[in-house]
Amino acid sequence: MKTKLGTTPFIYPIPIVLGGANVHGRPNFCTLGDCGIMGLNPSLVYVSLHRDHYTTEGIVENGTFSVNVPSTDLLAVTDYCGTVSGRDVDKSGLFVVFYGETGTAPMIDECRVNLECRVVHEFSIAHRQVFVGQVAQTYIDEQYVTEQDGRRVVAGLPDLDPIIYALDNRYYRVGPAIGVGYQEGKKYRPQ
Amino acid sequence: MKTKLGTTPFIYPIPIVLGGANVHGRPNFCTLGDCGIMGLNPSLVYVSLHRDHYTTEGIVENGTFSVNVPSTDLLAVTDYCGTVSGRDVDKSGLFVVFYGETGTAPMIDECRVNLECRVVHEFSIAHRQVFVGQVAQTYIDEQYVTEQDGRRVVAGLPDLDPIIYALDNRYYRVGPAIGVGYQEGKKYRPQ
Repeated sequence: MKTKLGTTPFIYPIPIVLGGANVHGRPNFCTLGDCGIMGLNPSLVYVSLHRDHYTTEGIVENGTFSVNVPSTDLLAVTDYCGTVSGRDVDKSGLFVVFYGETGTAPMIDECRVNLECRVVHEFSIAHRQVFVGQVAQTYIDEQYVTEQDGRRVVAGLPDLDPIIYALDNRYYRVGPAIGVGYQEGKKYRPQ
Repeated sequence: MKTKLGTTPFIYPIPIVLGGANVHGRPNFCTLGDCGIMGLNPSLVYVSLHRDHYTTEGIVENGTFSVNVPSTDLLAVTDYCGTVSGRDVDKSGLFVVFYGETGTAPMIDECRVNLECRVVHEFSIAHRQVFVGQVAQTYIDEQYVTEQDGRRVVAGLPDLDPIIYALDNRYYRVGPAIGVGYQEGKKYRPQ
């Protein structure tokens, strides 16, 4: 039996990332769950921010942003980045920062995976500013890539150990693998 | 040490949902990882589809869609829905379907959480069609809501038991809770 929950946007699990942008020439990072994939080819991702957020200024200024995926050992600093604004606190020293091809999207060395993105579309709805980015380059700590049969293979999710969030305001880690994409359906297919 | 991965949109974990739309008057469902939250208030979500997908036709036709969050016991049928097109296979009988306020966004009774959405913005980039929906109503199986101190509280993520996906083409379940939102940062904050 269903019951109504109002208009809560209850899509879960929520990936937790650190969005990065240079704001007035200095790296700034904000904790985001409003982010995700929009396509593989072209490689598209989005971040959705409040139009008054400090990071928003930097993305508009440069037309670039980064997405940095923290692992659970970075939980405390990741949560912290979501509780203070770059307007009040200089977050540029919290991490070792590097830049890639765009030159203006600051990335976090301590995060195992980093995306640098160029804004290819943006729009606003109410106070929300959504930036769609095309991925210019993806970076990963080299220990999470292995060579298998001449192909480079990225480590599984438990090794990347991301932070999961949900609207119960709890953080979680990833559990065990339960299946393989495009294979599990074969168990279902009517004969 | 970082290594380059090309332009892979490596944001993870990826939430797996079943997107729903009426296509030519019949419910159709497709498996999606390109979906997520864009805001809480207003309540905004998005789905990103190939412009030629059968479901895309239905969303354009009605201006509505649904997001249904399957739990791990629905893994086989969820994977199956991503391997066949509604053009070739009638998926309307795979689930018990119900409708809400919009009347045209088919929802899946077997999924613990359902969102019915009205399209408030859309855009295309290359072959991708992105629909941003405002949530008209969220539904949840009533056993996952309890009353605590006069407030309705939704069950935690392990009880909702969603399917997680990642670009290693594996499905995962959620692991244990590791912290509380807006609290873990206090352990980090410099004194």
